[in-house]
Order: sequence, then structure tokens, then C-alpha cells
Amino acid sequence: MNDPDIWHYDAQDFREVKPGMLRRVFNGNGMSLAFWRIDSSTPRTPYDGHPDNEQFGLIIAGQLDFRLGSDDRQLLGPGDVYYAPQNMPHGDSKFIGDPATGETWILDIFCPVREEYRRA
Amino acid sequence: MNDPDIWHYDAQDFREVKPGMLRRVFNGNGMSLAFWRIDSSTPRTPYDGHPDNEQFGLIIAGQLDFRLGSDDRQLLGPGDVYYAPQNMPHGDSKFIGDPATGETWILDIFCPVREEYRRA
Repeated sequence: MNDPDIWHYDAQDFREVKPGMLRRVFNGNGMSLAFWRIDSSTPRTPYDGHPDNEQFGLIIAGQLDFRLGSDDRQLLGPGDVYYAPQNMPHGDSKFIGDPATGETWILDIFCPVREEYRRA
Repeated sequence: MNDPDIWHYDAQDFREVKPGMLRRVFNGNGMSLAFWRIDSSTPRTPYDGHPDNEQFGLIIAGQLDFRLGSDDRQLLGPGDVYYAPQNMPHGDSKFIGDPATGETWILDIFCPVREEYRRA
């Protein structure tokens, strides 16, 4: 991707990758973004890490109840940010949707590009 | 930064870097995040690029009226995403704050780390 670009929010541009989990991916040259819209009914996610990518996450709306390299659970809400280094397990996530939409919105950011996202 | 970490939203953790422009920076090993809260009264920003960093931006709240590699102005709102390759000029920005806060909230994401942000 080498041209400037703008993507307006469009609910139709999200793809359901697991039941209740909608995702829209944006890839640069050195990083990937995953914009998640996750329904409160979604089962708990796996607790694992990814060896090749460091990750930031920003909660945009709703809440995330998860674990980050620990047995302790953390409750995050809008404006909260987390960082998972390469290989650091995270997840075991529950989602408490925003009352307006029933969804939790999260922007996950990966460096370098997540290769499996090139086909997402 | 090599430990997992969580930063809860705290208005006190933002620093005013220009009049009306509050910023909170997060650095990983290969990327930087700038969480902006920008008042509608902020004068137009410069129109320029940065040679070493590609950039994504996500509008979280409020609106951004700006230019991205073009004379044409673009109006972005919540959930909209933009991409500026290295060197691509962007800015000349006006900000229309969310009615609830009077602020535009934007997450800018840079790869690699913006060196000047290491001291931010």
C-alpha cells in the first residue's frame, strides 16, 4: 500500500471471522490494523500470543474483560490502551457491548504486518 | 518497552503540545501511537509529511476536516480511517469537536517509532 487513502466507516465492510466477531483489516508496509466489532454473545477467545508481532489495542466503545500475560483479569473501557509484546499471551476475553450497539469496538495494531491479514 | 502494560484513560495523562492540542504517546519497539484530544478552537495545522514514518489515523470522536496528498478537503468522522505513506503531505486540518466534549479524538499510528516521541 503506497497511495494515500481514506476509508469511511461502513458496517458492510466488516467481515464475520468468528461467530459474533466482525473485523475490518488495514495493512500498511510495516503494520496492520484490525478494527473489531464484537457482540457480547461471543464465546471467550483463546489465550495465546503471536511470535512475530507486537500489539497495541485501543478500546473504542464497550468493554473488554481479558487477561494479559497474567492470571489476573483486567477490565478495560473506552479510551483504554494495552500493549502485548511479541509472544505475550493475551485473551480469554469476554466482551461487554456498548448499550447503544451491543458491541465492543477495539482497534488492534500489529507490527510488523500480520502476514495472514494480507488475505483478510 | 518489553513488558505487557495497560493504560486506563486519564485526562490528566495528556500533555498540551500546542494550544488546544492534547496528546498522549505510547511507544512500542516498532511503532508509536499518538492519542490526540483537539479542541475546535485550534488553528489550522501545517500541511506536511514525515520522511521516515508511514501513518494510519482513526477518528474516535468528533470530526477532522483536512487534506491528504491533495488540494481537495476531506471530512472524516468517528470510525473513519486514513493512511498517509512516508513523505505524503497531510494536514491543513480543522477540527469539529464532538458535542459532548468539544474535542476531536484521533489515534495516529506511526511505523517505525517516531524518534521525537521517545521524549514525549
